[in-house]
Amino acid sequence: MTSSPSPARMNRRVVLAKRPKGSVSVDNFRIEDVALEPLADGEFLVNNRYLSLDPYMRGRMDDAKSYAKPIEVGEVMGGGTVGEVIESRHPDFAVGDQVLGPLGWQLYARSTGAGVQKLPQSKVPLTAYLGAVGMPGVTAWYGLNRILEPQSGQTVCVSAASGAVGSVVGQLAKAAGCRVVGIAGGERKCRLVVEQYGFDACVDYKAGRLEEDLAAAAPDGVDRLFENVGGVVMDAVLARMNPFGRIALCGLIAGYNGSDIAMTRVRSILVNRLRIQGFIISDQLDVWPVALKDLSRRVVDGTLKYQESIADGLDQAPSAFVSLLSGGNVGKQLVKLS
Amino acid sequence: MTSSPSPARMNRRVVLAKRPKGSVSVDNFRIEDVALEPLADGEFLVNNRYLSLDPYMRGRMDDAKSYAKPIEVGEVMGGGTVGEVIESRHPDFAVGDQVLGPLGWQLYARSTGAGVQKLPQSKVPLTAYLGAVGMPGVTAWYGLNRILEPQSGQTVCVSAASGAVGSVVGQLAKAAGCRVVGIAGGERKCRLVVEQYGFDACVDYKAGRLEEDLAAAAPDGVDRLFENVGGVVMDAVLARMNPFGRIALCGLIAGYNGSDIAMTRVRSILVNRLRIQGFIISDQLDVWPVALKDLSRRVVDGTLKYQESIADGLDQAPSAFVSLLSGGNVGKQLVKLS
Repeated sequence: MTSSPSPARMNRRVVLAKRPKGSVSVDNFRIEDVALEPLADGEFLVNNRYLSLDPYMRGRMDDAKSYAKPIEVGEVMGGGTVGEVIESRHPDFAVGDQVLGPLGWQLYARSTGAGVQKLPQSKVPLTAYLGAVGMPGVTAWYGLNRILEPQSGQTVCVSAASGAVGSVVGQLAKAAGCRVVGIAGGERKCRLVVEQYGFDACVDYKAGRLEEDLAAAAPDGVDRLFENVGGVVMDAVLARMNPFGRIALCGLIAGYNGSDIAMTRVRSILVNRLRIQGFIISDQLDVWPVALKDLSRRVVDGTLKYQESIADGLDQAPSAFVSLLSGGNVGKQLVKLS
Repeated sequence: MTSSPSPARMNRRVVLAKRPKGSVSVDNFRIEDVALEPLADGEFLVNNRYLSLDPYMRGRMDDAKSYAKPIEVGEVMGGGTVGEVIESRHPDFAVGDQVLGPLGWQLYARSTGAGVQKLPQSKVPLTAYLGAVGMPGVTAWYGLNRILEPQSGQTVCVSAASGAVGSVVGQLAKAAGCRVVGIAGGERKCRLVVEQYGFDACVDYKAGRLEEDLAAAAPDGVDRLFENVGGVVMDAVLARMNPFGRIALCGLIAGYNGSDIAMTRVRSILVNRLRIQGFIISDQLDVWPVALKDLSRRVVDGTLKYQESIADGLDQAPSAFVSLLSGGNVGKQLVKLS
């Protein structure tokens, strides 16, 4: 290693220790300290500043057919980060550049630039690139504007409404002139959804009166559903859908813990001639520029609000992730790395 | 009644005697003989020749929200018929005209012309207007060409493949260059699907190896599903769907007997970014002319084949309908009335 351009640096990282059976616990992860290999030509080294934790990561922990390759046991957990280039042997990335990329649950990452973008100088806060002006925001933007296409005056329902995706969906729908009804777990989240994000109403699915409360919140039925949850929450909305309604299926958090959660109100799809579209935002690369431009503008002018839960330090990532899956967080879940 | 233009004529009709709880039986119907009221100005009298029996009629027997108004207890069962005008006080319908219309489970029907169309002089057999060149054919045509839009070389799967709708879907898909896999109940129906209708394969869902047989019949997965059944049949196909697949949801015969049948493979919609569209052909009046023109041409030139089960006489309609719901018929179920 005498040819190394820099002294060996230790990296701390979180790897998949064993696949979960059912619920995820912190035992599924292992924290490792390993020496970083020196950079090769065409590589650069990023000091990760913030890591994003997202429900989709649960799916990648299984060895099942999914839209993304499973993470192997012993491999670093994947995830989006923002960070700063601190060494470079790459022509397009210089020391000091701020970058967004799929650089994983670790303090440092070597990269060839694949999937990494340099962040512009702007008034957008760095962490927002992992939230309202990042993957969750673009997910919301695409699902609402390209799948649901609501018309002014229609009722739009959003599950996981206080989350990083749901909160953006609701604010964009409200700006488009819709009546917006959120569904969230617990009084605190529901208050946030109405008071902070400006939804017209929010139904607390933990209160035990889901169908009645939804009927009261959406007296004219539901025309558009942005679904992040599945299971009984989705069933309750299916029963309230209006003819020719649309559903953007973005997530099934209720099903991430292993077994599939059934949909029982299938008949509503037929009777109400519903359209359901599943989607994964990474398929839709062409919409990112236009979506990010719109989202940036709204964040900078203060009309698009967001909230963050920031865990302090990489060692907290596993417990923060377990909490995220059980709905324990409020707003976008991040981990501050350095 | 001395002003009547014709002597009172007795009509025989089948009415809904009581709503079914669960499965339909012949006890849910009552046969009545009643005197026909004389025609008013603007009315004409049709002697119904054939009645169509269709699964959607089961839904109308319930008092539940559906796309069509429920049939009231004591009311004549609704249904499509072909027949001949035998009296007329209507300017547009003359004695001898052959007509297609929603004239119900009865030998005679008075009509103002609402929903009734005069049939053209053509080489299309009269009964085909209730099948391949009627509502079932247009349903198949619309679902395939306007929702599924399969490309040549793709695999199209059709449930209830030997039925009036499914058999047309498969033949049109085959003509469009697709690999076509049917699902039907029993060896006899499966043989018909392959030998008569030219499907590439047919899976017998009653054989107890649905998932394995489907995997063998669709080795490259399923790109497009025309779903008439729901329940375990739909779940099996959901598990075989390819990314960006589409599903036209046309019927849920497995759920017609009261309770909803759950869909358990919901995760496939998300993972494979599927689009599911429920539809009802009566919403799509604008496609009827183009669809009927295409279907007529194919029936007359012999490239679109169909089979009929014809029950003999109105009194047999209830038992033929019960048999239809349990999959006892082969091909389009008709009742010969006169």
